[in-house]
Amino acid sequence: MARAIELAQKGQFTTQPNPMVGCVIVKNNQIIGEGWHQVFGGDHAEIKAIKNCKKIFGTKKALQLLKGSTLYVNLEPCSITNNTPPCTDAVSHHGIKKVVCGTLDPNPKINGAGIKLLKNAGIQTVVGVLKQECEALNRIFFINHRQARPYIILKSAQSLDGKIALKNGASSWISNSASRQDTHLMRARVKGILVGKNTVLSDNPALTMRLDRKQLKLLKNAPLPQPIKIILGNLTHLKSAKNIFSNNAKVITASCSKGLSKRNLEHIQYQPKNFLQNLMKDLLERNVTSILVEGGQETLNAFIRNNLFDELVLYTAPIILGNKSLSALNLESPLGIKEASKLKLQAVETFNGDIKATYYA
Amino acid sequence: MARAIELAQKGQFTTQPNPMVGCVIVKNNQIIGEGWHQVFGGDHAEIKAIKNCKKIFGTKKALQLLKGSTLYVNLEPCSITNNTPPCTDAVSHHGIKKVVCGTLDPNPKINGAGIKLLKNAGIQTVVGVLKQECEALNRIFFINHRQARPYIILKSAQSLDGKIALKNGASSWISNSASRQDTHLMRARVKGILVGKNTVLSDNPALTMRLDRKQLKLLKNAPLPQPIKIILGNLTHLKSAKNIFSNNAKVITASCSKGLSKRNLEHIQYQPKNFLQNLMKDLLERNVTSILVEGGQETLNAFIRNNLFDELVLYTAPIILGNKSLSALNLESPLGIKEASKLKLQAVETFNGDIKATYYA
Repeated sequence: MARAIELAQKGQFTTQPNPMVGCVIVKNNQIIGEGWHQVFGGDHAEIKAIKNCKKIFGTKKALQLLKGSTLYVNLEPCSITNNTPPCTDAVSHHGIKKVVCGTLDPNPKINGAGIKLLKNAGIQTVVGVLKQECEALNRIFFINHRQARPYIILKSAQSLDGKIALKNGASSWISNSASRQDTHLMRARVKGILVGKNTVLSDNPALTMRLDRKQLKLLKNAPLPQPIKIILGNLTHLKSAKNIFSNNAKVITASCSKGLSKRNLEHIQYQPKNFLQNLMKDLLERNVTSILVEGGQETLNAFIRNNLFDELVLYTAPIILGNKSLSALNLESPLGIKEASKLKLQAVETFNGDIKATYYA
Repeated sequence: MARAIELAQKGQFTTQPNPMVGCVIVKNNQIIGEGWHQVFGGDHAEIKAIKNCKKIFGTKKALQLLKGSTLYVNLEPCSITNNTPPCTDAVSHHGIKKVVCGTLDPNPKINGAGIKLLKNAGIQTVVGVLKQECEALNRIFFINHRQARPYIILKSAQSLDGKIALKNGASSWISNSASRQDTHLMRARVKGILVGKNTVLSDNPALTMRLDRKQLKLLKNAPLPQPIKIILGNLTHLKSAKNIFSNNAKVITASCSKGLSKRNLEHIQYQPKNFLQNLMKDLLERNVTSILVEGGQETLNAFIRNNLFDELVLYTAPIILGNKSLSALNLESPLGIKEASKLKLQAVETFNGDIKATYYA
């Protein structure tokens, strides 16, 4: 199962809206085939592993080997036809004796139905091996199905004293180049980047992912992940925001008033009530399964206030910006320490003197 | 030299105001004796290493072995008599052929004089091996001599959003018990703990080091380090501050007005101009070679404003305290990002979800 997880991770930049899945087939304590789901729409991990077995041993020998083998997969095999035929068919068709899964599929259309089909076909099943690790691997996919919204990562760079920018707005170089390189890796892992209108108008950012296939360790033919851009607010002055249109990526604007829609630019209008919640729902419907919220301060704080986030990533630079500068977080104070919002520190990394802290909500 | 540094570190809680020194004596590529300076007033590392050699081989064999040997020591051997006779005498007396040092002694009474004496005695000398590591080991000692003040460590616990306490002052449990345990280790490394008067009056802290010999890996007969307590301001209401007198430790109060002096309590009065600088000088004269400044906010900020610190240690708890809470750092904002104070991230550790970041000034 640990190997299946390792294989699954190879698809981290390319499988969404699908989950990352890895599969290992074992016969007589030896791996006879392995595979992973490489790209949305392509073969599932189980099929890849069966094909891999055939490639290594030749079809005839492989068919003999697969009979009576055990298949390890981090997620329940699918029982439905979407882009590809159900994996449960392939499993029973090849005479695999036992299937070991990390977790059930949270998709309500499957959620146990795959296991049931396998059982009915006389296949032995085990569910829950390395369950926590398998759930952690597909946090995005589980949030999508359980919360019916994209996985939301909030990102901010701040000074030692928690400031995001000087009073005059100067902030561009708070974090160092190594940290900024790392944020491109974060961009590569999500389907959308969300910022407030003011950030677009004042900084005119491109909001593109600037790493290449080699840096992402992608297969040669894999699509380069390029998130769509989501802007909170109307873009009435397109000229001062032209960089976000530079790579022909899709742009979505969302506000409470009417807005411009044209090629690559979609505007969605909302009522003020549950604005963010409704936007999140619409994003998921458009297969935006994960977003990185990059600022500005008001936008970040709105997500925290609405308790709409899964991760908060803070880069802290070793610099002091002082009491007249803008705070990165500007939230209501709790009545007492016990009532304060608490997060869970998930990881700490350093980038040339900057600290990156990843918190789970 | 790396072994000498390793040995030297064993004295970290007990040598001040002396430096940490380790010594290794080598003959024919084999270590024939090693030692470290264990406690202020006790044998220096070189003497310990020579005694160690005699203990292992017996005096007669040791005297033969020491002749023509090479001695490694992280700091220049002393050329003066303080509590103990000069080490240079012992070195030449035993016929040691070569002395390899990490750094010169920054004490102006020695600073090269030890090396000169050795050279005059016909001993080969090398200075500067693992120089950076040897300087880092004795940062306290080097600051004492170069800046004529104690080594100053500022410590604060803050929330994710840089707050030290709620508006009502509630702060006791921002950091977790593992972090607080770690601060006792920091207390064990310094000769004094400094806080503002308000902290003493509102919290009535004991300001003691609460680890035992075993936790500090001290030798059985080594003195347990217990820092003296320094209070900025007058203690007019001794009753509400009685905990700081609990373990008979020395207390120094410093203010611009007259104050009470009695057994264990010394008051020093200063002019407002260069208050902190003059206090630091007086502390060093009283052998307070290092201090840990624990708060409150005004006290910490005064040290930063005066650029009077060597380390800033920030514990960050995964909690949000909001915009009405008190900021840990409350300093003037710079005119531009380029003018902002920059520190150097030295180390990052985690304690059950708290992040400890150590910055050098």
